[in-house]
Amino acid sequence: MITLTLVGIGSGNPQHLTLQAIEALNSADLILIPRKGKGKDDLAGLRRDICTQVLRDPAPRLHEFDLPVRDPNTPDYRQRVDDWHDAIATIWQREIVAQLPKGGNVAFLVWGDPSLYDSTLRIAERLKSQMALNVQVVPGITAIQALTAGHAIPLNDIGAPVVITTGRQLRDNGWPTGADTVVVMLDAGGAFETLDPVGIDIWWTAYAGMENEICLHGPLSEVGPQIVTRRAEARADHGWIMDIYLMRRA
Amino acid sequence: MITLTLVGIGSGNPQHLTLQAIEALNSADLILIPRKGKGKDDLAGLRRDICTQVLRDPAPRLHEFDLPVRDPNTPDYRQRVDDWHDAIATIWQREIVAQLPKGGNVAFLVWGDPSLYDSTLRIAERLKSQMALNVQVVPGITAIQALTAGHAIPLNDIGAPVVITTGRQLRDNGWPTGADTVVVMLDAGGAFETLDPVGIDIWWTAYAGMENEICLHGPLSEVGPQIVTRRAEARADHGWIMDIYLMRRA
Repeated sequence: MITLTLVGIGSGNPQHLTLQAIEALNSADLILIPRKGKGKDDLAGLRRDICTQVLRDPAPRLHEFDLPVRDPNTPDYRQRVDDWHDAIATIWQREIVAQLPKGGNVAFLVWGDPSLYDSTLRIAERLKSQMALNVQVVPGITAIQALTAGHAIPLNDIGAPVVITTGRQLRDNGWPTGADTVVVMLDAGGAFETLDPVGIDIWWTAYAGMENEICLHGPLSEVGPQIVTRRAEARADHGWIMDIYLMRRA
Repeated sequence: MITLTLVGIGSGNPQHLTLQAIEALNSADLILIPRKGKGKDDLAGLRRDICTQVLRDPAPRLHEFDLPVRDPNTPDYRQRVDDWHDAIATIWQREIVAQLPKGGNVAFLVWGDPSLYDSTLRIAERLKSQMALNVQVVPGITAIQALTAGHAIPLNDIGAPVVITTGRQLRDNGWPTGADTVVVMLDAGGAFETLDPVGIDIWWTAYAGMENEICLHGPLSEVGPQIVTRRAEARADHGWIMDIYLMRRA
């Protein structure tokens, strides 16, 4: 029997780890660390650093493996993601069986929180249909919390709703109906430029919670173009970018 | 000069504290602990317990103070909340000036995360207009993350938006437009009963992340009535209840 623990580790600041996350990592037999391939990101390195900082002797075994890439020839986004999750699940199973033939506890470090725009829970569901598996989740600090903390702002207006959405949704469907506060994640860049900026304020953060965090905020009409420029520069400097923003209508 | 640090402490499980939160509490000169009055809740006690567990010698001073109550004679909800925040800000200022006449670092323990349906940031804004104040926020595990972790479910469907809203909004406005996943907080009880339950699944958690956590999930038509009963029992048992739920439409 395998217990799979998905451990939310926060948005990149090792100080975001909870006591519960540290315990979960230390009580694992095996920690699996996915690699996206050279130059793709330095996230595998960050995961290793976090493990080095919080694991006690005798430490669980760390095992790295290569992730497949999404097939760009599959035109449908949802199908492409589904296929990719299938492929990852197959690799997870192979690695887990090879590393823990007699069963045990496997932990994964998940950026932010495992519930939020993350695929590990969906991949774990696929594994459940293929092997005896107990899935546990340790909650983590999300990029949303890192964003609002960095700007010291509330997420919601008093008693009012908030929409969390993606850059793609914002581009395709415009400002979501029913809420004056919108948080946008997974934006490949500048989806806010498709909006009429009048009356909208934006709070933008890149590398939320990390040493090189960048925060910009103000009226969308003024700050929007600055964000586009700053984002391109930061991406060129670091080789990758992770950003998030909140917009509020007056 | 006063630095006010609002420290998200997670949803009630002391293991939700982050390393950053523990450092922030230890580096404070003063920790203010609000009391809601006898029998109202045991949350002041929980805050004291958390401090006892994580504070190192020499520990910051803990100071408790009584919160005012909202005036039930103010009919408008928003006005009632505004007045209450004004009254709390006055008390905060009085306590801070009395306890730290020469300035220093004051920390508040905030349930969940300071950005999410919480008034401390708004009260801090009021204080800023009355005294020299630097406000810092340490993000915390929200009840939303505790809910999804307890049920081991994703918050969002793939690439899809999520609405976070309140029981009051759900009662007044029905299912929010534009999203198939809705998280409801601050529900005084059973706002989901106002919905047509056909095709809706619900995941409900009370005392999320705490020892006495209760989780129920299933089709709203079946589980809704169970939640209403279970919630009333739990509330009677504990004298208070804090619950949250996620609903998804097929």
